[in-house]
Amino acid sequence: LHRNDILCFSFIFGLLSNDPDVILVILDGKNKKGRVPCFIFINGIRILSIPLTKRRSEGAIPIAANYRLIDAVVSNCINSNINKIYALTQFNSTSLNSHLSRAYSGAGLGKEGFVQVIAAYQSPEDQGWFQGTADAIRRCLWVLEEYPVAEFLILPGHHLYKMDYQKVIESHRSRKSDITIVASNGITVRDQDPGFGVLKINAENQVMQYSLKSDTEPVNYTAETLSRFNDTSYSNIPSMGIYLINRATMVNLLNKHFPKANDFGSEVIRGAISLGMKVEAYLFEGYWKDMRSIEAFYQANMECVKKSNMGYNFCDRDSPVYTMPRCLPPTLVSDAVITDSVIGDGCILNRCKIKRSVVGMRTKIGDGAIIEDSVIMGSDVYQIEDGHESSIEGIPMGIGENTQIRKAIIDKNARIGKNVKIINKDNVEEGDREANGYVISGGIMVLLRSAEIPDDSVL
Amino acid sequence: LHRNDILCFSFIFGLLSNDPDVILVILDGKNKKGRVPCFIFINGIRILSIPLTKRRSEGAIPIAANYRLIDAVVSNCINSNINKIYALTQFNSTSLNSHLSRAYSGAGLGKEGFVQVIAAYQSPEDQGWFQGTADAIRRCLWVLEEYPVAEFLILPGHHLYKMDYQKVIESHRSRKSDITIVASNGITVRDQDPGFGVLKINAENQVMQYSLKSDTEPVNYTAETLSRFNDTSYSNIPSMGIYLINRATMVNLLNKHFPKANDFGSEVIRGAISLGMKVEAYLFEGYWKDMRSIEAFYQANMECVKKSNMGYNFCDRDSPVYTMPRCLPPTLVSDAVITDSVIGDGCILNRCKIKRSVVGMRTKIGDGAIIEDSVIMGSDVYQIEDGHESSIEGIPMGIGENTQIRKAIIDKNARIGKNVKIINKDNVEEGDREANGYVISGGIMVLLRSAEIPDDSVL
Amino acid sequence: LHRNDILCFSFIFGLLSNDPDVILVILDGKNKKGRVPCFIFINGIRILSIPLTKRRSEGAIPIAANYRLIDAVVSNCINSNINKIYALTQFNSTSLNSHLSRAYSGAGLGKEGFVQVIAAYQSPEDQGWFQGTADAIRRCLWVLEEYPVAEFLILPGHHLYKMDYQKVIESHRSRKSDITIVASNGITVRDQDPGFGVLKINAENQVMQYSLKSDTEPVNYTAETLSRFNDTSYSNIPSMGIYLINRATMVNLLNKHFPKANDFGSEVIRGAISLGMKVEAYLFEGYWKDMRSIEAFYQANMECVKKSNMGYNFCDRDSPVYTMPRCLPPTLVSDAVITDSVIGDGCILNRCKIKRSVVGMRTKIGDGAIIEDSVIMGSDVYQIEDGHESSIEGIPMGIGENTQIRKAIIDKNARIGKNVKIINKDNVEEGDREANGYVISGGIMVLLRSAEIPDDSVL
Amino acid sequence: LHRNDILCFSFIFGLLSNDPDVILVILDGKNKKGRVPCFIFINGIRILSIPLTKRRSEGAIPIAANYRLIDAVVSNCINSNINKIYALTQFNSTSLNSHLSRAYSGAGLGKEGFVQVIAAYQSPEDQGWFQGTADAIRRCLWVLEEYPVAEFLILPGHHLYKMDYQKVIESHRSRKSDITIVASNGITVRDQDPGFGVLKINAENQVMQYSLKSDTEPVNYTAETLSRFNDTSYSNIPSMGIYLINRATMVNLLNKHFPKANDFGSEVIRGAISLGMKVEAYLFEGYWKDMRSIEAFYQANMECVKKSNMGYNFCDRDSPVYTMPRCLPPTLVSDAVITDSVIGDGCILNRCKIKRSVVGMRTKIGDGAIIEDSVIMGSDVYQIEDGHESSIEGIPMGIGENTQIRKAIIDKNARIGKNVKIINKDNVEEGDREANGYVISGGIMVLLRSAEIPDDSVL
Repeated sequence: LHRNDILCFSFIFGLLSNDPDVILVILDGKNKKGRVPCFIFINGIRILSIPLTKRRSEGAIPIAANYRLIDAVVSNCINSNINKIYALTQFNSTSLNSHLSRAYSGAGLGKEGFVQVIAAYQSPEDQGWFQGTADAIRRCLWVLEEYPVAEFLILPGHHLYKMDYQKVIESHRSRKSDITIVASNGITVRDQDPGFGVLKINAENQVMQYSLKSDTEPVNYTAETLSRFNDTSYSNIPSMGIYLINRATMVNLLNKHFPKANDFGSEVIRGAISLGMKVEAYLFEGYWKDMRSIEAFYQANMECVKKSNMGYNFCDRDSPVYTMPRCLPPTLVSDAVITDSVIGDGCILNRCKIKRSVVGMRTKIGDGAIIEDSVIMGSDVYQIEDGHESSIEGIPMGIGENTQIRKAIIDKNARIGKNVKIINKDNVEEGDREANGYVISGGIMVLLRSAEIPDDSVL
Repeated sequence: LHRNDILCFSFIFGLLSNDPDVILVILDGKNKKGRVPCFIFINGIRILSIPLTKRRSEGAIPIAANYRLIDAVVSNCINSNINKIYALTQFNSTSLNSHLSRAYSGAGLGKEGFVQVIAAYQSPEDQGWFQGTADAIRRCLWVLEEYPVAEFLILPGHHLYKMDYQKVIESHRSRKSDITIVASNGITVRDQDPGFGVLKINAENQVMQYSLKSDTEPVNYTAETLSRFNDTSYSNIPSMGIYLINRATMVNLLNKHFPKANDFGSEVIRGAISLGMKVEAYLFEGYWKDMRSIEAFYQANMECVKKSNMGYNFCDRDSPVYTMPRCLPPTLVSDAVITDSVIGDGCILNRCKIKRSVVGMRTKIGDGAIIEDSVIMGSDVYQIEDGHESSIEGIPMGIGENTQIRKAIIDKNARIGKNVKIINKDNVEEGDREANGYVISGGIMVLLRSAEIPDDSVL
Repeated sequence: LHRNDILCFSFIFGLLSNDPDVILVILDGKNKKGRVPCFIFINGIRILSIPLTKRRSEGAIPIAANYRLIDAVVSNCINSNINKIYALTQFNSTSLNSHLSRAYSGAGLGKEGFVQVIAAYQSPEDQGWFQGTADAIRRCLWVLEEYPVAEFLILPGHHLYKMDYQKVIESHRSRKSDITIVASNGITVRDQDPGFGVLKINAENQVMQYSLKSDTEPVNYTAETLSRFNDTSYSNIPSMGIYLINRATMVNLLNKHFPKANDFGSEVIRGAISLGMKVEAYLFEGYWKDMRSIEAFYQANMECVKKSNMGYNFCDRDSPVYTMPRCLPPTLVSDAVITDSVIGDGCILNRCKIKRSVVGMRTKIGDGAIIEDSVIMGSDVYQIEDGHESSIEGIPMGIGENTQIRKAIIDKNARIGKNVKIINKDNVEEGDREANGYVISGGIMVLLRSAEIPDDSVL
Repeated sequence: LHRNDILCFSFIFGLLSNDPDVILVILDGKNKKGRVPCFIFINGIRILSIPLTKRRSEGAIPIAANYRLIDAVVSNCINSNINKIYALTQFNSTSLNSHLSRAYSGAGLGKEGFVQVIAAYQSPEDQGWFQGTADAIRRCLWVLEEYPVAEFLILPGHHLYKMDYQKVIESHRSRKSDITIVASNGITVRDQDPGFGVLKINAENQVMQYSLKSDTEPVNYTAETLSRFNDTSYSNIPSMGIYLINRATMVNLLNKHFPKANDFGSEVIRGAISLGMKVEAYLFEGYWKDMRSIEAFYQANMECVKKSNMGYNFCDRDSPVYTMPRCLPPTLVSDAVITDSVIGDGCILNRCKIKRSVVGMRTKIGDGAIIEDSVIMGSDVYQIEDGHESSIEGIPMGIGENTQIRKAIIDKNARIGKNVKIINKDNVEEGDREANGYVISGGIMVLLRSAEIPDDSVL
């Protein structure tokens, strides 16, 4: 460890203690090359976990036709020149691990860069799963400590935003903080889900108190901390779950002060404040979306289809979004009218209408189909072999002829028959028809992965 | 060299001696792993070289929205399990070399596979350029000979077709040929350009005579060869320029028998026949297109846009076409009517009409534009930075508002202004307006790379 | 699934049910390209787990100076043209996952090949760890089933041997077996550890009975199976834990017949026999070593140092052993006498004597040191920065001056001081001095990872 | 081009006009990510070209057991955070192109980095070879100009040194120079070969005059330049051929001011001075070696074998030397006494003595051999297949039994028989025995690539 290295980290906030996945990035203060090692920790999700996360963690959800949700955070790291990334995973991690190892293997991260998955594992000392975010980091410290870095950066894996983490680091270092928490200046606490962290900060952006939104229990403060409350000019803002923390602070908090803590926000951060550590907030103004619900996910996709993008811009050349490189054939269109939509790589669009929709990679849409206000995730493979589509048994992958889809999310590899209507015919707000291959959430029809909908169905 | 290895090769035929680039593939008869080393040689082109090959060799021409022409031949090799490929280049080779080294570096070719460019070079013994196909191979033999293979396969780099080269190899070996030439059974000699090779074959597919189509001079045969002509049942078929040749045969022909030969077809192959070697034809029935003219290139692109593809299928899952992997954003469509067209990755299509056209990667099309029967090659980069398109000086990259384009090829990075008409207004068949940024060939408007067409122009 | 595809698999045998890691390979019967998808499952280990596997699973143990144990099995796959590999991991998997994803990412496995880790994960349906080999495969079937293969191949990850799996597949297919188990013809049952599987086979190599060596309980046979016992000419041979199994057979056995089975060998295979399935043995004659003990691991390393290698040959050009590519500086030797030893990449050897030893990557050995009959695993990094070794605090990494080491295994990153003697001074056979940084097993001194031994110590 | 970007370059100096290869690096002043695009140009060599560069350019010469000479310069770029590199090649470029594309493909250079070869090529406008360094750059400007950079950095490819180019850039920018030339403060002009450039600089390090050492003709100065000569306090120092030059300056000099110039140093740089441009020197103090002779190459290798390295340090962790990653087996030593030597990866050393020598990758040395003061480059492949060495015809690759080698350079893939003495028996200083497979230069025996020396020879 270079003497001048400092250690910072940021961390998921507001996660329940049985939800241990976070993104963790370690930053090196004195790296001569201008690069910083970085460790990521990925969040499995709860609210989205049914139905989109039945088989995958939230970070692996396909978004904006060509991407996975986790690409947003990894691309932030790459664009912030952070190239050593660990992803801690546990819940439904298979497709996330697969995506990360294929999309970011080798290339693009510089000579010493990597995106490395640390999956939950058993060991002689500890036979259990990660018990929460704090526990997960604690059990990976032996790996993280190998790098002579000054700070750790902890990031949730399921948020959609663009941020230059170097600015957070600069703030942290210039203010000589122990912990810097990124908080959203654009979202009011009222908008937050219960369970989210709320920061009480003073005029100098020092964090005076950390509470969960639903949290009514008071925190016990030390006399020193209480004395700071004389400053009455503070405000409540929502934490974004991004923590930058000094290396020694992290090790001490996890191993010495709170060796039993499972959750990072509600236990470790609160503890740090109560110990009188210098915990400060970094206020972030830009677009930020937490993918905690079907609605949030649907809205984020709908933002993509607008010409004047006010949300997350997937096409920005200055901060490109990276993902798995592909070499698919171009999209083949035989006769389509397409309005305010994005079309992923390698689609096959027959005589159809597409309006305000996201059409994912390799989607096939039949003659006469009408797609409106929907998110089609696409397929993992092309089904047609040797040009003999007729040989496919059952309903072929894609959207059948004369089928109508409105306000729906169609997960990967769905097989929608002909003359199907997916229109939420009974105008249901919430409904679970998982046995039939779909779920309704907030009035949005959600077709499950590999769902098969017979010809002439009306849903 | 394993004793049982045999050597086969195939080779560009009908090239003029000042056109030395070919694809060369060396095959290993006894490789235990079922893989064969392979060497490629790429052809620079003549007829196409103005205007599409002004800065690039023919193999580097963008085709079918997402590809380069050379990808067809390299993909044939990969799909035929041939994974050691040398590409010999000389003419305008920069973008071809760049494409090959980025698209096929490292991944995908197996533990020992590679696509390696051998650029023309000077040496103490030889200060000149490659003088022809035969000369190019001769000067690279010291590299090729390092591999203990039995045969070489030589392929032109500018043809569009799908072929399983393993079948050619099987035929070659089972018939114990010295040389196997692949010939097209579907194209008549009458259709051929002058300069192409024509094979006279007997009923057993033995090649009795090799002539250039324009060639009127007789070949001198040995007595032995002439005696074979007693068999009167022979026919004339066009060579495809694909040669499979035994290793020792190749070395002997180039170094011992014809050390001064520059052209492979008209000199070396003819010579082999005259020496009484066993030269045989392998008849190929499928789609095959030689990209020797703007018209051929235009037609091949137009084939792609048809739903029922009768030509080269870029979307076939069983024999995929490989190219440079990308991770572009999805195509953003604000309001487009698209008919019988293919759309490459990452386009931005505003309110426009696209009919029977190929729209290449990153193409931007303005409101009110109409594109018909055209090939738009797209752009290498996105021009808009920081979302501030207004800051671009001059005409922005892409197709401007209310512009009409009909029966045109728009090369990479063109900047077409607003209210432009590219319609061949004077109905010219052939014309060179290179100073104005375009050329007309066979009635097709061809806009040069990076051409800038001011607002309101009518071409 | 192509109609002609068949499905075979092989599987770890004799594992206790709390030891779920296996290597699993899926084979495609009809792949046109001659390649076969393949899935691996890696074994965490028990006996070795202390002390060498305290932090890593057995497959990640460094062996033969430059390798990890798992490289042997992955290289077998690559050399057998099997290029789709899944590794199922759970126990101490971090360094194994890291090694696999770095060593085999992207390159070398062909266009569709991969080595993909499937780490144990939680899901809404199943919150627990893998409960055994059968359970692990069952929970990953949804991933494995995506590939239209005919057979699965299951391999343990901690065995050292060279085998062409294509021969096993040929035998399996020509005999139309349901399951083929590879068994060792060179090892007698007597040599086997308790817990190992033993096959009773008849003259046609059909497996009549599967038992664990320690197993005394009889198996219940169906009438049909019993009738086969009329053939009295059978023999007992040890299973190698390699299974090739038909796809449908696998799915049926795990989901239909034995949905509660946790262990593959003792439960599923026995069950298959009792159901009258066609279970056959493939007899393997070559070198094979199961790394179940410190002694076995020590012996395998000692085999490497011999000029006339009778064991596992790491230098065989025809079946190379792949691993993480490196670009270390050459080994710098100032004055060494080296006898019957192997030296890994990038060592720094001062005036020292090395005899019958394996010296791993980046090992530094001081003046006057004597190393005999030992395995030095080396270091992960170079410690000296800026050439200022003097600035290192504490004992530097490597072997200090005038230190003697005899019959020892020195794990990675050890820091052995000056004038140390690691000679098992009290001639102990078994002993646990973990607090002091070492363990004695079978008379072999084993120094733990990152052990620090002060100057002048005598162990 | 961002408005604030500046353009700098540096360039090979003193090359004859028929020696056009240089390294060219373009630097971006305003890249937000802290990375700079960079273009390289590689020098073919003259003096070394016989015998070590008979088949390869100088940059491709194996050095220090595991490297190629060009790795030094590319590693300097990587360690200076310069990741866009073009290498311009022409002379004997095949093995250099191959090394660069394999060693630096994809990985390690960051998301947008590359090492790209631009081989000499023919085009419709220009059928000739590169006519010199200036001509080569001029013909590649259309490629280089695609990047919106502020400066170009030009580097020779055959020098051995470590330099942080960022310091040169800082100096250049802070002094607002047009051109910065790196000059060696540690070497006197007297030590320089004829043909080298010499800078006359004043007290502020401004370059007043550029001359070739052998150059006696005066340069014509403008009045403005002459006026600067009033400052009498200048000195003569040798240029290192490293140029940093502003983008616009480069384009103007090559296309506008000196469109016919072929050599960069003697024509373009002199011209820039005469035009009154701000040309400044950056003085470099460290180790620097120009590989212009067999003696220089031999000495550089001999530096490597010393424990206290005073020359180029290949083992420095802070500025590692990158090269082609390998996964060779460890070196197998049966009984060797090794003194002050470096041993490359994967050697096989039998009972032999090695003293003050560099032993390259895969070298095999027989029983009783004695190697002293020599550079053995090693082999490209292992020759032994299936363990049957006896089946090799002729002399096997490597050094035979009881052979003595003293003060020699043995190029790749040599086959030295038994009881051979390579000792310069007649004490010749210079001699060309190329027909016999060797050359003597400065008393050093140089065995050619793939040389075969029969048993019992005494050379």
